[in-house]
Order: sequence, then C-alpha cells, then structure tokens
Amino acid sequence: MPTISNRLTRTLNIEHPILSAPMAFASGGALAAAVSAAGGLGLIGGGYGDSTWLDQEFDLAAGQRVGVGFITWSLRKSPSLLTEVLKRRPAAVMLSFGDPRPFVEEIRGAGALVICQCQNVDHIWDAIDVGADIVVAQGAEAGGHGSLRGTLPFVPEAADLLAAHSPKSMLLAAGGIADGRGLAAALMLGADGVLVGTRLWASSDALVHRRHQEAIVEANGDGTIRTTVVDIARQIPWPRGFTARVRRNAFVQRWHGRENELEQNAAIEGPRYRQAFAEGDPDNTGVWFGEAAGLIGAIEPASVIVKRMAADAADLLAGHAGTTLA
Amino acid sequence: MPTISNRLTRTLNIEHPILSAPMAFASGGALAAAVSAAGGLGLIGGGYGDSTWLDQEFDLAAGQRVGVGFITWSLRKSPSLLTEVLKRRPAAVMLSFGDPRPFVEEIRGAGALVICQCQNVDHIWDAIDVGADIVVAQGAEAGGHGSLRGTLPFVPEAADLLAAHSPKSMLLAAGGIADGRGLAAALMLGADGVLVGTRLWASSDALVHRRHQEAIVEANGDGTIRTTVVDIARQIPWPRGFTARVRRNAFVQRWHGRENELEQNAAIEGPRYRQAFAEGDPDNTGVWFGEAAGLIGAIEPASVIVKRMAADAADLLAGHAGTTLA
Repeated sequence: MPTISNRLTRTLNIEHPILSAPMAFASGGALAAAVSAAGGLGLIGGGYGDSTWLDQEFDLAAGQRVGVGFITWSLRKSPSLLTEVLKRRPAAVMLSFGDPRPFVEEIRGAGALVICQCQNVDHIWDAIDVGADIVVAQGAEAGGHGSLRGTLPFVPEAADLLAAHSPKSMLLAAGGIADGRGLAAALMLGADGVLVGTRLWASSDALVHRRHQEAIVEANGDGTIRTTVVDIARQIPWPRGFTARVRRNAFVQRWHGRENELEQNAAIEGPRYRQAFAEGDPDNTGVWFGEAAGLIGAIEPASVIVKRMAADAADLLAGHAGTTLA
Repeated sequence: MPTISNRLTRTLNIEHPILSAPMAFASGGALAAAVSAAGGLGLIGGGYGDSTWLDQEFDLAAGQRVGVGFITWSLRKSPSLLTEVLKRRPAAVMLSFGDPRPFVEEIRGAGALVICQCQNVDHIWDAIDVGADIVVAQGAEAGGHGSLRGTLPFVPEAADLLAAHSPKSMLLAAGGIADGRGLAAALMLGADGVLVGTRLWASSDALVHRRHQEAIVEANGDGTIRTTVVDIARQIPWPRGFTARVRRNAFVQRWHGRENELEQNAAIEGPRYRQAFAEGDPDNTGVWFGEAAGLIGAIEPASVIVKRMAADAADLLAGHAGTTLA
C-alpha cells in the first residue's frame, strides 16, 4: 500500500501529513493522542485559556507526542498560560487570530515548532516575518472561527509567497478537508499537509455532545453559515474580521442580521446559549462545524479517519483519480 | 510530456479537460475560439441576451467548435435567443442561475450537450433531475455571479451525489482555479475537469478593458468581495441568493452595506457606473474578477494559459508534487 512521505512527515517524524485542528472545547487530550497514535500529530485546543482544563487534557494525552494551539488575541491577556503549557513539552504550538510576534521566541526557546495559522495575505506576511516553521492557510469553509478566503485559491497563493520569501516554512491547508480527496488536492495545491477540524470534531474522540454530532451526520454542506451571533451571545469579543462558521440552526436564523438586538439581550441569551450548549441542544445554541459536513456520514474513531484519509490520498496520488497520463 | 485523458476529454473530443467560463461581456468569440484551438472547449457568454452581439461573436469563432452559456433566469425572458443560438450548432449549452428544466429538451434536440452550473446542493439535485451531461460545481471564490459554497468541499460533495444518482453526468470544478495546481486538485477532488473564468478574463483574448486587466495583475487574492452593489447600480434585478464577486474598489467600498441608499440613487449611479465601465476605470465601476487574482501575474494569450495549465497539472499528477509514495 502506498504511503505519503514528504518534508512535513520527515520534520515532524510522523507517518501521515495530517494534523488535527486545536478546536476550543472539542480538541481534548484524547483526540490529540488518538491522532498522534494514528500517525498524524494531534493538537490540544488551548481555547480561551483554562489552565486547569489544559493540565487535565495534557494528562489524558500522556504517552503521546502532541502539540497545542492558542487563540492569539486571547493568549495575550494571560501569557503565563503559554509558559505553563511549554512545561508539558508540546511538539508544536499553533498561534491563530492575532499577532504571533509576542510569543514566538518563548515557543522556540522551549524547543517547540511554531505554527502560524493565517486567514489572509497579511497574516501570511506576519508568518513569514517570524519565520514560522509551519504556516496554515485556513479557508472560509472551516468550521468555527475564520475569515473570508476560499481554501482552493488561498493555498497556492500562500505557497507562492512562502516559496519566494520563506522557503523553509512548510504549508498546511485547512478548511473543508475531510477525506483523502481533500488531502490529495491540498498536496497538488502546494501544501505539505493538512490541518483537519470538522472531520475530527465528528469523531468519537472529540469532546462534542452526541446530539451535536448527530446533527452533522444529517447535515449537508449547505447547512452552515459564517456569523458573529455565537460570539455575541457568549459575550466573547472577537476582533473584527473574524466570524464563526456554525450550523445554520434556529438560534442562528433567529439572530443573524439582528446582532445589535442580540447584544442588548446577551444577559439573557448568554446563559441560555451556554445551557443549551451543555445539553447538546442542536437547535438553540452554536453547533460548531464547517462545510465538510457534506462529506461526513458517520461518527468514527479518529484513528479510522486519519488512517483512511492518508490511505485514500496515497491511492489517488498513485492512481491519478481515473485519469490516464499518456 | 504527460497529458491528461479521461471521460471528459474523450466525450468532448478535446485535448485538455478545460472549459472556459461563459462570462457575460468578457467571453466573446475570440476567447472561446482561442480556448478551443488550444485544446480545451471555449464557451461564449450569452449574458443578458443580445442577439446581435451573439451573432457577431459566433461569427468571430467560426472555424472552431465552441459552446455557449446563458444566465438561466434571464434566458427565460427571451427564450427565442436559445433557438437562434442553437442554429449555430454549439457543442454545449451551459445553464446557470435558475431552473434548467424549460430549456433542456430543446438543447438536446439540437444535438448539444447540457451543462448545468450549480452553486449549492439543491442545484445539484436539479441537474440530476434533468440528467445533465455535465455538472459544474461553482464555489464562492469565482469572479462574477455565484453563491456561498467553497470550491474545495463542494466539489467532492457534488461528486458523491452524482456517483450515487447520476453516474453518467460528468463534473467540472469552478471557482479559484487558475493554474495547473488548481486543475490537478480538482481531479483529486473527484472532478473530470475545470471551468476557468478569472484566469481567462485576464487573457489578451478576453473582451476586458486593458486597465481592468492591469488591476488584476496588481491585486492579490484578498482584494475581492461578494456584493450586490454592482447589480443594484446597473438595475439588473438578480434573484436572491446570488451575489457578484468583484474587485474591492472605491465604488464597492462606497456602497457595500448601503444597498438601500444605492437603490434610491440608481438613476444617477447606473449611467455613471456604465460610463466608468466603458472607460475601463478600475476604481469607480464593477471590475469583475475572483480570488484567483492572487495567482495571476501577467496578461497572456488564452492559448498559453490553457496549455500551461494542462501541462503543469499533468506534471504534478505524474510527480506527486514532491511527495514520494513508498
């Protein structure tokens, strides 16, 4: 059986060029460890910075080499969190949604690789400026927070910029990649590998309520939307330019386009949102998945997902997808 | 040198699995003929239905086998246009942005292939229902009119639907595809080929003002936006759900978000928009290109673009993009 080997797999010493996205709340130690055990590299979701939670999740991943990811603008409010986490010797630290400069030196000093996730060309320049070991070009298809660029044209544009200005930086594609076809396509676009969110959110190793996972199995790829209403309800003030892709459900239909009104109702809507989220209500809270929903038909273990993605991509690359080269 | 051969190239009897998008105003007979002469299949842009213009452009393409594309909701207002055009024996007729059902029988009866361009899953079901010969899955990255889905996850979702329900329908990817990397990626995603707009808009064969083409060479992929302001200014009432991706220029910055006000000013703004468009003003009218802008560094002949895209994709497919399969 063919396998994929390139500078990413060699540098990270992994079997498959697949990293799991550090999804806030969903990417715990069990998911990260399962991805690493399957031959990829799992990243724990640092989210908004709960050190007790992070300690617990790193404990759950004990025995596997994993990394971690932070929401950069949030980390800036509690930078000691990074210092704490680096004691757990993560293989890599991903920074997304903010200026990476304040944190790069400390990450490098601890021997971890620096991953910068980028949503537009300006972000790519920031990543080049800090000499990121790995750059993630994240398209708007992604679940959760992101921005406007489409994965397919953004990845080769990022590849061209890196080739010209930071050729040692490796590139991952993110946003809409859920199977071997997406991985093979990402490699053709000039990426060295992929960062996978939604497909692993829909795994039995993710910290996601079973009813939310049932909703993604039922959904097709049209069933999501980019919006700010989830953050307004939770009273989490995200910087301008970022929105969250979530299921287009009753909660979103009610408030999208009425953001000011929601803001005025946040004292009531916030607790209601959080309770519905905890209960796994699929209709009246944020259900955090992306357009890859249309490619997901079952909740499976992360190990199955990672190994099948790698094997299918290698088959496609070997077999040219039914195309004959003459 | 390897070349790509598959069921699309065999069915259409073309050398490369590349069709040009029938861009209103920009895709005249010269561009369509150049694409066909280079080994792809060129489509003349039927646009909003000017039969004199169409006659002239078919004359310009004389000697080459070409197709044509229509804006379906507009064609419905002047269906005799289709009857006229079918006398020119187009190889294929593409229908986009509306219900294809009223036109399919007449197209088939004239011996042309039916191409249905789709922007979401409901449209794919329409295409399945009419047994489209070719289905285009068009992502939001595309220049000009389109909708919300991202190309990368939408194409494999469309491929799965067609495999299950209309396996004889062939699939093209559209939106953000400008070079061999995009074509190779599209094939990996399950497409049989690609429909190329923006990259050929930026060709010396397109009916596009030179100053608008200079603007795309300068732009990166972040420099576009999906908006309705171009249609409001022109007083062309597009159906809900479709927007146009254009350059994010002074005109767009001025009116995007103030659509109601623009509507009230359309009597002044409309003529002003059209005059600025005719003059090739890059700042004060719609400049119709997509996110592939970030992959375009020069205005070149369509023949160069098509042949290089095909050759580069074949090289990538043969060489696995630096990936070794072990």
